[in-house]
Amino acid sequence: MTNRTTQVMDAIRRKIAERALLAGERVPSIRILAAKMGVSPSTVVEAYDRLVADGVIRSRPGAGFYVADRAAFTSLRPPATDLERSVDPLWVSRQSLDAAPGVSKPGCGWMPPDWMPQAAIRRALRQISRSDNALLVDYGRSRGGQDLRHLLARQCAEEGLPVDPDMVLLTGSGSQTLDLICRLLLRPGDTVLVDDPCYFNFQALLRVLGVRIVSVPFTRDGPDLAAFAKALEIHRPRLYLTNSALHNPTGATLSAQTAHRLLLLAAEWNLTIVEDDTFAALEPDLSPRLAILDGLQRVIRIGSFSKTLSAAARCGYVIARPELVEALTDLQVATNFGGPSPITAEIVRITLADGSYRKHIAATRTRLARARRDASERLDRLGIVPWLMPRGGFYLWCQLPEGKDAQIVAKAALERGVVVAPGNVFSAAGTAGDFMRLNVSQVASPVFEHLAEILRTSG
Amino acid sequence: MTNRTTQVMDAIRRKIAERALLAGERVPSIRILAAKMGVSPSTVVEAYDRLVADGVIRSRPGAGFYVADRAAFTSLRPPATDLERSVDPLWVSRQSLDAAPGVSKPGCGWMPPDWMPQAAIRRALRQISRSDNALLVDYGRSRGGQDLRHLLARQCAEEGLPVDPDMVLLTGSGSQTLDLICRLLLRPGDTVLVDDPCYFNFQALLRVLGVRIVSVPFTRDGPDLAAFAKALEIHRPRLYLTNSALHNPTGATLSAQTAHRLLLLAAEWNLTIVEDDTFAALEPDLSPRLAILDGLQRVIRIGSFSKTLSAAARCGYVIARPELVEALTDLQVATNFGGPSPITAEIVRITLADGSYRKHIAATRTRLARARRDASERLDRLGIVPWLMPRGGFYLWCQLPEGKDAQIVAKAALERGVVVAPGNVFSAAGTAGDFMRLNVSQVASPVFEHLAEILRTSG
Repeated sequence: MTNRTTQVMDAIRRKIAERALLAGERVPSIRILAAKMGVSPSTVVEAYDRLVADGVIRSRPGAGFYVADRAAFTSLRPPATDLERSVDPLWVSRQSLDAAPGVSKPGCGWMPPDWMPQAAIRRALRQISRSDNALLVDYGRSRGGQDLRHLLARQCAEEGLPVDPDMVLLTGSGSQTLDLICRLLLRPGDTVLVDDPCYFNFQALLRVLGVRIVSVPFTRDGPDLAAFAKALEIHRPRLYLTNSALHNPTGATLSAQTAHRLLLLAAEWNLTIVEDDTFAALEPDLSPRLAILDGLQRVIRIGSFSKTLSAAARCGYVIARPELVEALTDLQVATNFGGPSPITAEIVRITLADGSYRKHIAATRTRLARARRDASERLDRLGIVPWLMPRGGFYLWCQLPEGKDAQIVAKAALERGVVVAPGNVFSAAGTAGDFMRLNVSQVASPVFEHLAEILRTSG
Repeated sequence: MTNRTTQVMDAIRRKIAERALLAGERVPSIRILAAKMGVSPSTVVEAYDRLVADGVIRSRPGAGFYVADRAAFTSLRPPATDLERSVDPLWVSRQSLDAAPGVSKPGCGWMPPDWMPQAAIRRALRQISRSDNALLVDYGRSRGGQDLRHLLARQCAEEGLPVDPDMVLLTGSGSQTLDLICRLLLRPGDTVLVDDPCYFNFQALLRVLGVRIVSVPFTRDGPDLAAFAKALEIHRPRLYLTNSALHNPTGATLSAQTAHRLLLLAAEWNLTIVEDDTFAALEPDLSPRLAILDGLQRVIRIGSFSKTLSAAARCGYVIARPELVEALTDLQVATNFGGPSPITAEIVRITLADGSYRKHIAATRTRLARARRDASERLDRLGIVPWLMPRGGFYLWCQLPEGKDAQIVAKAALERGVVVAPGNVFSAAGTAGDFMRLNVSQVASPVFEHLAEILRTSG
């Protein structure tokens, strides 16, 4: 089968997967598709014959080809092996989540198990095993347990952001929080601003929601304000998603001046901002926050405990104006009949209240500072240069030696059992082809050796 | 303030909440709105003045009124007290979830804590507290833990439905499973068939998704087939959602003949069916299932453990064709970065494998059979008649005495600290105004006395 035949087949399958062609609908005529794709009619004939054989389309003699009854079902996603699958935002997530035990994951977004506070979690589990029947089996309240909501409200107050516990909603996870907010505030076709680069799953989620993604170059102080202002004027976005503290993937810190000017622009253009505070616990000290400056007027604060406490007991939160929290609560009941599992929220609450947790986090910050320094030294020898040295967290946003392509490096690395996060999965504009995000807590011994070898032979 | 002024204010607030009016947009002129709503211009003037005072709209002298910058935010949902809030599907959910400790909940969809297998859950928690670090802190695999997926695949095989573990995806909850499927297969404007009556949260979720809901009358054997066929012909729905075993709210059982004819109709009209098996464990023996008859060709099986194991350790599942499972996995990663919390999925796995669990379920079935009989006797004395006597489960779908309105009963009950589920929250066609769903496990002492008093004085 020729490459072109495959292209035609893929184009039809994609249209069906995207529901541009529905079951029973006629597919383009051979002549029209051949002209459109710049291939010969015989190529299209071969492609259609094969699609008929695969049960994707049916031929009605004299009347053309039609999408088979269940093709919308069977063609939802073409089967792909790990290596064939295109390197998109979901690629890194799936490769990292489903990595076999021996695989190294310097591309993943979490720390190894022995860096996490498992002793405190074990204690929490034992404590829960002795608690009330209701906690063990009931759905819990629609906004989540009061004690954890009060604890989060107190933390906000300590940071200079006084909030009522009614402004705190517990959610199933950080990702789910963002999904709920977007489903409430956005409609397909709306525009959302993100940083370039930004956390890749922001993009995966926004694509699911059918919104337009516009990205603004990110500087060492936050978004490029001139580009940001221009994007507001041209695209009139409804939302801006960002991490202010330990920005993912760059590790940059928002400056006070940028924060202030950003909020002025947001007010001028009636922009709502979602500030994702997921990595906050790993900061050495509190850096400027949009939510705090703004007093939650037009900023929504979200976060989770998956990066610093446990990703096996998922629980997110949103802190926002009461009427927004009320609407999000209804939406979470409709889509999930509640928020986090009460048992996981209780694991989080007990661990946060456990004195050992603060000590563990302090020790982890020190450990990460050392790991960042060590990794950047080893990267330096490979000609890989961190864009900046972050104040905290586990990411280094690194530029590869000149002429190297991070996507090729990522594919070569996967063949060697190393999951790498290539730059362009973070860049909506596709301008980070020579960057990669490196997790300094996940670079056990053979990772740098593999990278050295890959850079020598390919990439 | 007059009633009419309030109506005008509400109409504008609603338009903003529904995004029919966006921030900065001009609101209708006083004259036009007055004509449209059949009120005097002075009423609209008063309403607009008050909306200006509330910060919802702004006046530009000589140029009319405009939606205030942040009104889209502040007006998302008008604040409402519990008693004021309209009795819609979400009303019952929120009232049940957020009921104060002393409140009785015969309208809720779960059993009291002491009916649940808490001893087994305590054992599971202790066992997990001693397990691997990775289980305690890692995200886990994108499809969920293999052991639980294999266990569910084996259960299917025992029921006569051979499935590969790759056809099993673990999800955050039963509701989330349905949400994922709908987001994958539906687009706004698509039509979905539901039973009339059906589980009320189906409707809440479908409304969030912006799809058209068409309901088909439910008989004691399943949906009314003539009405079902007609609905297929007229509305061309993409999906049909149902519970075959212990139908919610009626407790009815699908007959083999109805199941078979339903599948023939589905094939003829290219309909996909989602069969929600949430209550299956409470059946005395296996009744006909669409998924089993069909072999998962066009049926998707979903379920959860919240009703029989624990709602505090939430975990749902979907069993479907591999390509659908693959697409749902991607969607779940994009929207939730994975499925259930690994710790909660492990609680489910350990409990299902615990010998005591089967015994507990068997005992619960007996206990429920007795509770159904006792409740129907007490209802009988009140002139309330179950539509049928279910083979299992905790619901009785009951008709109130002639002339009584379940919504009025529900509001009166709430004032007395009793949460009741009025019939029309289950009926998309609004034909169940004199029905209510009663949970026989939640009718501790004062419930019947309150109902008697309410039926005597109001309703």
